[in-house]
This record gives sequence, C-alpha cells and structure tokens, in this order.
Amino acid sequence: MSDLLDNSIAAITRLRRVHPRVHCITNSVAQHFSANVLLACGAVPSMSVSEDEIEDFVSSSASLLINLGTMDPGRTRAVHRAVAIACAQKKPFALDPVFVQASKTRLELAKEIMAARPTIIRANRAEADVLFDQSNHCECVVISGPEDKIINENKTVQIGNGTPVMTQLTAMGCSLTALMAALLAVEDDAMVAAAAALLWFNIAGELAAEKSVGPGTFTPQFIDALATIDASTIEKRAKLLWPE
Amino acid sequence: MSDLLDNSIAAITRLRRVHPRVHCITNSVAQHFSANVLLACGAVPSMSVSEDEIEDFVSSSASLLINLGTMDPGRTRAVHRAVAIACAQKKPFALDPVFVQASKTRLELAKEIMAARPTIIRANRAEADVLFDQSNHCECVVISGPEDKIINENKTVQIGNGTPVMTQLTAMGCSLTALMAALLAVEDDAMVAAAAALLWFNIAGELAAEKSVGPGTFTPQFIDALATIDASTIEKRAKLLWPE
Amino acid sequence: MSDLLDNSIAAITRLRRVHPRVHCITNSVAQHFSANVLLACGAVPSMSVSEDEIEDFVSSSASLLINLGTMDPGRTRAVHRAVAIACAQKKPFALDPVFVQASKTRLELAKEIMAARPTIIRANRAEADVLFDQSNHCECVVISGPEDKIINENKTVQIGNGTPVMTQLTAMGCSLTALMAALLAVEDDAMVAAAAALLWFNIAGELAAEKSVGPGTFTPQFIDALATIDASTIEKRAKLLWPE
Repeated sequence: MSDLLDNSIAAITRLRRVHPRVHCITNSVAQHFSANVLLACGAVPSMSVSEDEIEDFVSSSASLLINLGTMDPGRTRAVHRAVAIACAQKKPFALDPVFVQASKTRLELAKEIMAARPTIIRANRAEADVLFDQSNHCECVVISGPEDKIINENKTVQIGNGTPVMTQLTAMGCSLTALMAALLAVEDDAMVAAAAALLWFNIAGELAAEKSVGPGTFTPQFIDALATIDASTIEKRAKLLWPE
Repeated sequence: MSDLLDNSIAAITRLRRVHPRVHCITNSVAQHFSANVLLACGAVPSMSVSEDEIEDFVSSSASLLINLGTMDPGRTRAVHRAVAIACAQKKPFALDPVFVQASKTRLELAKEIMAARPTIIRANRAEADVLFDQSNHCECVVISGPEDKIINENKTVQIGNGTPVMTQLTAMGCSLTALMAALLAVEDDAMVAAAAALLWFNIAGELAAEKSVGPGTFTPQFIDALATIDASTIEKRAKLLWPE
Repeated sequence: MSDLLDNSIAAITRLRRVHPRVHCITNSVAQHFSANVLLACGAVPSMSVSEDEIEDFVSSSASLLINLGTMDPGRTRAVHRAVAIACAQKKPFALDPVFVQASKTRLELAKEIMAARPTIIRANRAEADVLFDQSNHCECVVISGPEDKIINENKTVQIGNGTPVMTQLTAMGCSLTALMAALLAVEDDAMVAAAAALLWFNIAGELAAEKSVGPGTFTPQFIDALATIDASTIEKRAKLLWPE
C-alpha cells in the first residue's frame, strides 16, 4: 500500500517534469475544463476530433483519452481510427464511457472500444453496471463514487478522498479520466496511474472545498490546487484502503 | 401576484428535491456553463446532440431544451427528432431562438419548431421582433431585457430583477432558458416555471454582483448564489409587476 | 513608438464605444472563453460554424476570426465561405493557425487561407516555423512567445508584457487572436490593432497575476481586468521595443 502511494507520487512528479502531450477526444461540454485541468497538472492537451487529422495527432502524442459524450458520425470515425492507431503503436489509452447507460448506440460503441482493451476504463456506478458483464476488458477499471475503487486482475484498492461539491460540477469525471490518460504517458503500471490521478484530483478537491463556499468559487481554487499541491500534502491526506 | 411568487418558490424547492434530468440540445459555446447552472440548481443535464442517440436521451429525460446556436446538419436533424419525441410523449420543452435575427436559415428552423408549440419560448427583444408576427406559438413567451416580460394568453407579468453585468457574459440567456426547461420538469404551469427561473437566476445575479467587481469575479459568485440562495431571500427581493 | 502606443489606446477606447460584432469561427475548446474575452472588451461575438448560416453572419459582422482548431468537413467548408465573403466585402480578418505543426491537413488548410491574405496572422514559434517559409502572406504577422513580435513589411516591434501563468491556461492564444479580429473592426492599421490587442491582453494578465495565486484564480481576475483596465494603466505599463 505504501508502495502504491510512493509510486503514485513519483508519477505525479514525473508528469510535472516531462510535460507529455495527451490527445483527447472528449465531449464538447468537457473540452475547455479538461484542457485546463491537464495544463494545471503539467500535461499538454490537444483536442482535434477531425477524422483527417486524428492520425497525425495521435501518432505524435504520448497517450490518448477517449470520452464518448457528444458523438456524431465524424467523431465516431475519429474514435475508431484513434483507437486503432493507439493499439498499433502500443500507446496507452483511457476510456470514459460517460452516460453509456442512457443510449444503446453509445453502449455498442463502448463495447467495440473495449474490445481493443483500453489501459484504463473509468466509469461511475450506473455506467459500470451496464458495461461490466464480463471481466478482463482492460488492465485496470476505476469505478467512481463516494469511495473510488481501482480494480485489476489481482487486487482492488479503494481511495476515500474527495468532497461532495465535486458532484455539483459538470466535467469533473471527464477531466479525471483525462488526467489518468496523462499519467499513463509517464507510468506503465495502470493501477499506479489511476491511483495517482485519483489522489491528485480528489485531494486538490478537498483543499479547494476548504477555501470556497459553493461550486462556483470551488472551481478556481480547484485548478490552483491541482497546479500547486505538493507531494507531502498528498502523502499526508491520502486515504488508501485495501478492502479484505 | 403573490400566488405567482408562492408558486415560483414552490417550484424552485421542488427542483432541488426531485433532481430531474433535462436533455439540452444547446450550442457549443453555452454547453459547459449551462450544465453548471443546471447542476447548481439541482437538475441533471444531459447534452448529446447525436441523431442516433437523441431518441434514447429525450425519452428518458423529464424535459427538453432546444437552443438554435452553432447548428450543423446532424444537429438540425437531432433537433427535429427531439421535438417530435417530446410532442409524442407530451414532454415539456423550452425554445431559445438565439441570434435568430442574424440568419434566414435559423429563422426558418425556429418557425418549424414553433409549429410544434414549445411550452416556453425565451428571446431577447431583437429575436422576438423577427419571430412573433403572430401569436399563439406557445403557452408562454418570455422577452428578456432590462425588464423581463412573461406573456401568456391571458396576462403579462414583468420581473424587474437582474444586474447589467449579466449582459457582459456569454451564455447567460442560454442558461436561463435551460433553467426554464428544468423547471418545466417539476411545474405544469409554464408561466410559473418561467417566473421561477427568472427570479432565481436574476436575484442570484444581484447577489453575485454585490460580491464581485466585474464579469470575471461575478461568475463564480453567481454559481454559488444559484446553489445556495434560499426561499426567503427570493421572496424579499422579488420585483414582480403586473402592467395595466 | 509613442505613436503606436497612442494609436493603440485610441483603438481600445474606440472598441469599447463602438461594440462591433465580430464573427468567430473558432475551435470548440476556446469558444466560451473567447466570447467572454470579447464581451469584457466591449465587442459582440457571434460563433456560428454552420455552412448554411455563415454568409448571413459574416456579411453582417464588422470583422472575422478564423481559428483552425477542432475542424470537421462542415466547419472547413464554412471557413472557406467565410474567407471568400470577407475578401469580397473587403472585411478584415485574423487567422489563428493553432497547432498547425501537428497535422498535414491543417497545414494545407492554413496555406489555402493564407493565399487570401489575412489581415493579421497570429502564431506561436512552433506554428510560425512551419508556416512562414515565404513572406508577404498578410499585412501583419504576430509571433507569440515570452516576448511578442509584430512584423509588417516595413518594421518589427516587440512587446514585453505578459506573465508566465498565461501559458498554463488553454485558449489564451485563441482569445488573443479573437481580440485582434475585434480591434480590426475599429482600426485600419493592422499593426496598431495587433499592438492594441497585445497590450490590453498582456497588461490585463499582469494585473490578474498580481491578484491571484495560480491559473484557477487568475481567470476571473483576468476577465475583470480586461473589462476595467484604463488607458493610463496601459500607458504606464506598456513595454514596447523596436529591435534594430
């Protein structure tokens, strides 16, 4: 457990030093906020969703985010090409099957992408319920909720950080998955990348909640906290649990 | 008049308790801000503009917003399908004909949607001037301006709340119409839903203006005020007028 | 040099008085922030990317912004039509070839637009390196960096204002180019329009950095500073240099 924490902090430090470029195909609601989250954390986002450009952008990026919100036919084709390139180039990618329970089309698309084995899939409870009828879809599944669970073939870890105000803001889950994709650019162990993102994101959230009175004043403080939080604060506040 | 105020406050309280899902087809400039306004008010936004998904999303939502900004052919087809589903399922929907005076194509689209009788249409003066050559397009028309007017078949009410800084920010009108759509999910009387949205939105704006110095610092305070304002503050500050 | 400063301040004052409408074809990541930057500065943004509407919107606007992020086939056709209309109507336009170094398709598109001679092209160093193999593409080139350079046929001027935190936020360059487009609506001399935008934007950034601790708290202060900064502050803080 202390290994996981140490390795997570090392990954965070590495992301801030390396500044990898992460290509994000993400929904138009979350694009601006996700880009600012990534920049605050030291990554460089690119956000093209163009079928014609996606090969160039994915090939030159260090990792990939696929988020299934606000699709259209061109975006769907871009997703398929991006995933194919990531697989061919053995580039890590994270999948966010946002609102997949609300649309049959999206559920099919999610299953097609899962066949390419994303490195990380992050979903909330309702999304996970319709997706995970079988196992072994990816190296590592993250299920978000009041307590976040990270699950791989061998073990499960729970992270108890965070604050309820984060559920009152859009694009929080989407930008968390984007941060996981960024950490995959500097960390081979998917469970470490997921844990690092959750600790960074949720502890920054706790700090921001202490300095704000509602979801509006929370946001600027949150971005500041992502940019300025140090390793020792993460170490002190981390709530890692190994159930059983 | 005090009935309208009482009923508006009851609708606001209900929205915060029920957390209805509102499907929003809105322009890409306003998506992120509108989603945060809805979340701050207790509603759950979904934002797919995909032709293939729109039936699933609209069918499972409690109400619908149609905003005509940043259209493209796929989005236009999604709008038509969403409106058809809302009509078939007798689901309330609000229409925002943003910038309709600037484009003939948009004006035609607005008129087609008006033929399906939106529950509420909210427009500013310039938009209303090109749209309302005849009456009876909807249950309730809201015309925004320094003073906001709510008009139905039988009566007109004016609301005098608000602050000039709200005109210096994009997506304010768009997110106000989104809030009207959300209130239609918990309130059958369109005039009450419109009044509740205007009072909530504009009084939160007044509170935020008192705590900020410009449009930048206004925004976080505004989202906080939407999330935290209580019934008695709305009651005390409400400026309802029955002209004539 | 003091002429350039005086003329820049006059252009800023004029923009705040005239409230020109600027049509922006810009990427979906930058739309919301760019619209708020323009509104804070006194301009009125419109943001349609619809092929069917673009003629109406560009014809009735005072100037045009073309930004090449998040393209798709419809958006590309809208760009071509918008540029053709701007040329036919002798309307000024600014080009932002964002991330052009990362995609061959985008580079081709940028070159096609450059053939129509944009009034201003603003690029960062990496973008400029792939674009400017020959000269005479436009009236005025701006190359952003720690020091910003404005170059026309006869002279080069450097502007030394700004703050590093601006590089930690997305859409800063995009919204700066949007502000240049807005200033072209009230100022015929492209170099003056570019200098006015850079001084306004970067000095507002300095003021915001003094009142904030990170990129999150910077943003609200930045929008406030754009809206409230006065001529004498710009005059006092301006760092104009004529290299050579």
